[in-house]
Amino acid sequence: MNKGLLLLLFFSFPLLAEQWRDPNPDDLVYIQLPKGQIVIELAPFMAPHHVRQFKALVREGFYDGLDFYRVIEGFVAQAGDVEETRPSKYKGMLKAEFSRNIAPDSAYTLVQSPEFIAPQTGYLQGFAAGRDPQAGLEWLLHCPGTVAMARNNEADSGSTDFYIVIGQAPRHLDRNMSVFGRVIYGMEYVQALPRGNPEVEMGVIKDAGQRGKIEKAWVASDMPADQRLILQVQEQDSEAVQKRLASARTMDSPFYHFRGNGKLDICYYPLKSRLRPSDQPPAGTE
Amino acid sequence: MNKGLLLLLFFSFPLLAEQWRDPNPDDLVYIQLPKGQIVIELAPFMAPHHVRQFKALVREGFYDGLDFYRVIEGFVAQAGDVEETRPSKYKGMLKAEFSRNIAPDSAYTLVQSPEFIAPQTGYLQGFAAGRDPQAGLEWLLHCPGTVAMARNNEADSGSTDFYIVIGQAPRHLDRNMSVFGRVIYGMEYVQALPRGNPEVEMGVIKDAGQRGKIEKAWVASDMPADQRLILQVQEQDSEAVQKRLASARTMDSPFYHFRGNGKLDICYYPLKSRLRPSDQPPAGTE
Repeated sequence: MNKGLLLLLFFSFPLLAEQWRDPNPDDLVYIQLPKGQIVIELAPFMAPHHVRQFKALVREGFYDGLDFYRVIEGFVAQAGDVEETRPSKYKGMLKAEFSRNIAPDSAYTLVQSPEFIAPQTGYLQGFAAGRDPQAGLEWLLHCPGTVAMARNNEADSGSTDFYIVIGQAPRHLDRNMSVFGRVIYGMEYVQALPRGNPEVEMGVIKDAGQRGKIEKAWVASDMPADQRLILQVQEQDSEAVQKRLASARTMDSPFYHFRGNGKLDICYYPLKSRLRPSDQPPAGTE
Repeated sequence: MNKGLLLLLFFSFPLLAEQWRDPNPDDLVYIQLPKGQIVIELAPFMAPHHVRQFKALVREGFYDGLDFYRVIEGFVAQAGDVEETRPSKYKGMLKAEFSRNIAPDSAYTLVQSPEFIAPQTGYLQGFAAGRDPQAGLEWLLHCPGTVAMARNNEADSGSTDFYIVIGQAPRHLDRNMSVFGRVIYGMEYVQALPRGNPEVEMGVIKDAGQRGKIEKAWVASDMPADQRLILQVQEQDSEAVQKRLASARTMDSPFYHFRGNGKLDICYYPLKSRLRPSDQPPAGTE
């Protein structure tokens, strides 16, 4: 009686011809965590200087052997050099890249207007974004999987340490942090990182031996092609995405007895990513 | 330079005299997972029949040795008897408890009105809730940590299998599912459960050996007091909660350069829970 439970809630139109894009390997960063590899797609169109510095740090080996030293359940996993002792040629403080002027020629697919926090939300070049048409600004949202540079109180103080959102979208950080990517593969390995206690030392895990380590990070284009995961991301203007959103608005399934108000939280509807089908590992493997 | 990063984003008023309540041990269910114990606070005021049946199943040992057999990253972890072979005296199908008539004498603390999905949100007897004053209804929300009974397409078909929300709030399930509790301790152990592949077998992990097991479940009041974790939950009408919400609305910290619109997503502001201070384990332990 229970076997079919909840099945209708998550799936959409496997029979539709779905369209997938192959992200540029120069915009993909792999990070080897204790439980598995994660892949971040970078967003140079929004945060070019953060992306350039992050890639330089990755290529320098700056992050190799460093930790996710501050991991707060329901909030973020933050990584980098908590001791501030590791040398680097690329540690310069970066100018904030919180938002940019709306680029009318960018791929933008409206999802919700008005939205709860932003005047508009939509997919911007494959990422969940906010837009304020009156102010002429657009920015990337803090959704689960969002990657952004940490900073101190100064806007222009991001440098090396970064965080990944692991809980309910902390939307108050939108337009306050330089978002430069999102995790498109392996969020379960981020979720498996050891947590700190938010009431003690601000969530920093004091004992380095207890922290989840970055074994290695690298840019995909620096790897031999046969050692890369072949990842694909759903096209934001594909029929599958449009049907998924339309169905979510109307809740036109017999599963639903209350059909809501038609408003969509874009952070619940990230563009899907997948391993190219022939590369899929079996379910439940690590 | 990076050490203080993001510290202002999560913390609030440690100097305030905080008020904490001790949940009724008869409304607490412990579940031993591979990585640690989790604790669910039950909500009999909203879903009395689901709570009664769930507790009877727990006491019967129904869940002991069963699995989290369908765990979808960013959505839910679902547990129970996927094979439907385990006998029980308490497997009866339950009438839906999706919402109830507003009980004016209940403890209710308004958080947001209007909200994006619900006419109102607030804390109802310690849980994130929605309210529709015109319809005279109130219900518990699907936020991270929410526990609800799975069902098939029929409203009155919940029985034994349940799920825990592990991703961005799936608010389309509000008023469609019988929410009967929330995890107040150990969400990181839920997040560490092995995932299924949502594109294969609807996310069910086929190989039972790969699933995260429920080693044992029990009702707190059935345990010797000295074997229980002593958990406390923040009082919803405490000064600490009111200050946290007020500060979140105004974003009155020098960390913020953009101060938002004052609207709050209650799922980002769950009432905190803690081990009674003398019982706290060190940070980063499992």
